[in-house]
Amino acid sequence: MKTITLNTPLDMHLHLRDNDMLQTVAPLTAKSFAAALVMPNLVPPITTKEQLKSYAQRIKIAQGEEDFEAHLTLFFQPTYTKEFLEEVREDIIALKLYPAGITTNSDGGVSNFDIEELRPTLSAMSELGIPLCVHGETNGFVMEREAEFVSIYEQLASAFPNLKIIMEHITTKESVEALDKYPNLYATITIHHLLITLDDVAGGMLQPHLFCKPIAKRPIDREALRRVALSGHPKVMFGSDSAPHPQSAKESCGCAAGVFTAPIALQLLVELFDKEGADRENLQKFISDNAKNIYGIHPKEKRVTLEQKPFQVPPIYGNVVPMYAGEEIGWSIGLVE
Amino acid sequence: MKTITLNTPLDMHLHLRDNDMLQTVAPLTAKSFAAALVMPNLVPPITTKEQLKSYAQRIKIAQGEEDFEAHLTLFFQPTYTKEFLEEVREDIIALKLYPAGITTNSDGGVSNFDIEELRPTLSAMSELGIPLCVHGETNGFVMEREAEFVSIYEQLASAFPNLKIIMEHITTKESVEALDKYPNLYATITIHHLLITLDDVAGGMLQPHLFCKPIAKRPIDREALRRVALSGHPKVMFGSDSAPHPQSAKESCGCAAGVFTAPIALQLLVELFDKEGADRENLQKFISDNAKNIYGIHPKEKRVTLEQKPFQVPPIYGNVVPMYAGEEIGWSIGLVE
Repeated sequence: MKTITLNTPLDMHLHLRDNDMLQTVAPLTAKSFAAALVMPNLVPPITTKEQLKSYAQRIKIAQGEEDFEAHLTLFFQPTYTKEFLEEVREDIIALKLYPAGITTNSDGGVSNFDIEELRPTLSAMSELGIPLCVHGETNGFVMEREAEFVSIYEQLASAFPNLKIIMEHITTKESVEALDKYPNLYATITIHHLLITLDDVAGGMLQPHLFCKPIAKRPIDREALRRVALSGHPKVMFGSDSAPHPQSAKESCGCAAGVFTAPIALQLLVELFDKEGADRENLQKFISDNAKNIYGIHPKEKRVTLEQKPFQVPPIYGNVVPMYAGEEIGWSIGLVE
Repeated sequence: MKTITLNTPLDMHLHLRDNDMLQTVAPLTAKSFAAALVMPNLVPPITTKEQLKSYAQRIKIAQGEEDFEAHLTLFFQPTYTKEFLEEVREDIIALKLYPAGITTNSDGGVSNFDIEELRPTLSAMSELGIPLCVHGETNGFVMEREAEFVSIYEQLASAFPNLKIIMEHITTKESVEALDKYPNLYATITIHHLLITLDDVAGGMLQPHLFCKPIAKRPIDREALRRVALSGHPKVMFGSDSAPHPQSAKESCGCAAGVFTAPIALQLLVELFDKEGADRENLQKFISDNAKNIYGIHPKEKRVTLEQKPFQVPPIYGNVVPMYAGEEIGWSIGLVE
């Protein structure tokens, strides 16, 4: 049986939510990943040291016995001072910037991208070496939102050349192209955006469990994403953006945005890299090494062996329907050590 | 109170379905429209004279006491002979061509658009003066399917210059542009495609009740559709494509395509034309006169008066959720005589 061993897999964009949902999903990521960057868009969002400490503890309890490190993020606000950021520096890996209202629980986000408005906080982050993670969408037409945001990425990257800016869950060729133009722009890519296009969401029947923000784009965009992921491009990291919602919030009149991939992300990634004949080294870079370099983190080692044998995706985890629910995928998780 | 009276409103693209669904939806259209062109994509599709006679009778019973004429269509097959078409001529207003598998109940449709394959049937239709209604989508990327199909429209229009070809439920500026290039190309436009774009379907929460085929497109496309509809372009007719599905088939893992507008189509149309300051004459052309000219039909007169007073859209009709369920729209149906 063909096997592939990943060294210290990292999920650099993860939603663990809170309360019951946290209990359901945290163990699933903790089982197969060594560490993850956890998003702060709770209700209310995480904006204080107390919230960071408390959320870290709740995650610790929810993850159970698994060897797993949750790196927390702070919900970006342009009012943060350098003093405050110094205080929380040890509790966070990055700040996450959401345009106001752009996705789940982002109402308190930024509504004005005037560089001068943002300068005090971003300068402080730059001085302290705290990376900025960005959900990069305008409020324009849904298929153009990310491409339209590229000019904002470029302004930020030029204005703060020492600030590491991570374009989160990129979905377009325009974002891929921006990567190589600015030394301080980086990106995460999800497994679902490497696999699907808008055709999978809305080309046949409408598929609420494949609906997410940013929405999956055109075949030409998926091709651009695959090119940089499969080649192990040093500025690109895996970030699942696994975003659980209760089944009732997905299969209803107004379906919430988010694809839940945590329990199958590694299997799907290995399957894709294997099918496409990509180097195993590139997979290792994409799933771990690049993130270590970009964030300067040293996670505790965890070796995860994937086996090429069919895995039947469960129809539901708790009350959350995963991507490919009930379908068979080609790889399974074997030994984790 | 402001009122607008429509003379003999016609819905030139309507799905009445069958059995219980037919009982639910037929009276809703029959109440406010004088006549409608009814689509043949039942299971199995309507392909024989017996099916036509029988479906006509079932509709007659379902519509109740309302003064309303259902014009039936035959499901296009390239094997129909001239003799057969002569036999069913009196029972139909047109043939409806579906690319195989492109939408609800279209599996028996055309999979090969080779003109020579289609020539015998299309020549016979042309000679007998039977119009061809077409669902114009390729099986390409969902946002490009209709634009890609325009070259097929153009081939058909050139090869059969005396055949009236109706581009059904057009959604793109490319289809609008094709209208004026070929004298024998016509179009229907739905009310929902005049009102929404992909942003309304998938830009915020995912809205299954606004999901249809063809999917709603870009703002620039909606603008092109509005331009020809609001100006009363003589080759453009109203066709609701009202396409009911049970609530369970819409709010589930794989949501069926179709927007149910039958009970609110006239109110929404009048509201749009009024808001946009369009001539009432243009509305009359779009809702009735153009279709009479294009199809050469003489429906029994029915005068429908709309009143500018709020109408609360019911949350559900039978088991079908309408567009704008539970919301308030600006116009109501008043006197029908």
